[in-house]
Formats: sequence, C-alpha cells, structure tokens
Amino acid sequence: MAATEDRLDPAIAARLKRTADGLVPAVVRRHDDGEVLMLAWMNDEALHRTLTTGRATYWSRSRNELWVKGATSGNHQFVKAASLDCDGDTILLTVEQVGPACHTGTPTCFSDELPVRA
Amino acid sequence: MAATEDRLDPAIAARLKRTADGLVPAVVRRHDDGEVLMLAWMNDEALHRTLTTGRATYWSRSRNELWVKGATSGNHQFVKAASLDCDGDTILLTVEQVGPACHTGTPTCFSDELPVRA
Repeated sequence: MAATEDRLDPAIAARLKRTADGLVPAVVRRHDDGEVLMLAWMNDEALHRTLTTGRATYWSRSRNELWVKGATSGNHQFVKAASLDCDGDTILLTVEQVGPACHTGTPTCFSDELPVRA
Repeated sequence: MAATEDRLDPAIAARLKRTADGLVPAVVRRHDDGEVLMLAWMNDEALHRTLTTGRATYWSRSRNELWVKGATSGNHQFVKAASLDCDGDTILLTVEQVGPACHTGTPTCFSDELPVRA
C-alpha cells in the first residue's frame, strides 16, 4: 500500500482530462449553504493531497507551486466532499471555509456582477 | 450604439484574463437552490451572446464552435445573473435550467464522488 500512497490513485488519475498544462479546474463551494466560493486549479499532486489530507490544495498558476489554501492567510478549507464531472475535466469541492474565501477579503471571489439583458 | 452591440463590451473584455486558448471557464449554478450544475468554457463572443440574449452560450472545445446550451438537447439555460471573479479569470452564471444539465441525463454533471480521507 505505502508505495501507492505518495501519488494520486491511478484509477482516479486515469479518469482525469487535463489541460495542456496538466491541470484541472476545481470549483469550490461552501458545504452549509452551497455558495460558490472560488475556482482554482489542481495538478495530480494537488488533487492527491486534497483527497488524502482533507485540506484543499491547489496548483498556483502564478507562483508555479502547490498551495495549501489558508497556509499563509489562515483561511483554510476543510474538504467535506469531492466529485468529478461527467467528462473528467472538472472537480467540485465542498468545503468548510474558515474566514473569507477571497484574497480581497470578500466571502466569495464572485463579487463583480455583469449585466444580463434578455 | 449599434456598432458596439455586435461584440463584448470593451469594459468587460478588458477585465477578462483568458487562457492561452482565449477562453474563460464558466461555473454554472441553478438559481433556485444554488446547486452547481456544470462547468463550460467561453470566449468573448460566447460571453457577449450570453449577456445580451440571456441564453447560456459556450465555446465547445471539442467541436470548436459556439454552442447555445439546449439548442439540440432542449435543455436550455436561461441566465438570471452573471458575475466575474476577483481576478477576472472565471465567470459564474446563475441559470434557470430546463431538464437535466448533463448530457448523460443526470441533473448535474458532478455525479462521480471521489473519496476524501482526513
């Protein structure tokens, strides 16, 4: 067992459809009310760490490094559930969010409304 | 005015941070209960059409064409609200979903649970 514990379960890895950069978007929602908090990106190792530690872990495209959400901000995300979509190219995390999800200090990252005409 | 109506509002376009392919992911949730339905991709024209017609319109990466959700399946998405995230690289749509959102016939695309250990 130990040999397989340091990387993503191959059965899950085989179902992932990654971008050219090897990443998959992760949609993050709050577990108590389902509010959509943010979108971040995962490589296989980020997903592996998320699933095995229960701490939301992403790949920072700007810093090119693994990023445990809350490690510096304190705004941790404890993962309650995770799922993969029908074509294996998006992850949905359900989390207990500590503090604001957004680095701007707002509860969610989606604060900028766009006008819809219909 | 007419001259600007055939393309995305430049003020919105200027705030978008696109992938190398010129796309932005759009997270789609159901308006009545906030359930996360799917993730799709938009180029500027798809976003423009979505905002001006009120019908969710995406860029199909597999077919390389604009895709009005429901045009062939009948599973339309009528857009109630749209927002942009803090860094301009993700859109959140709130929609009235007709029928199942997923092409597999399930209400949402996220039916495949992943095990979380913590």
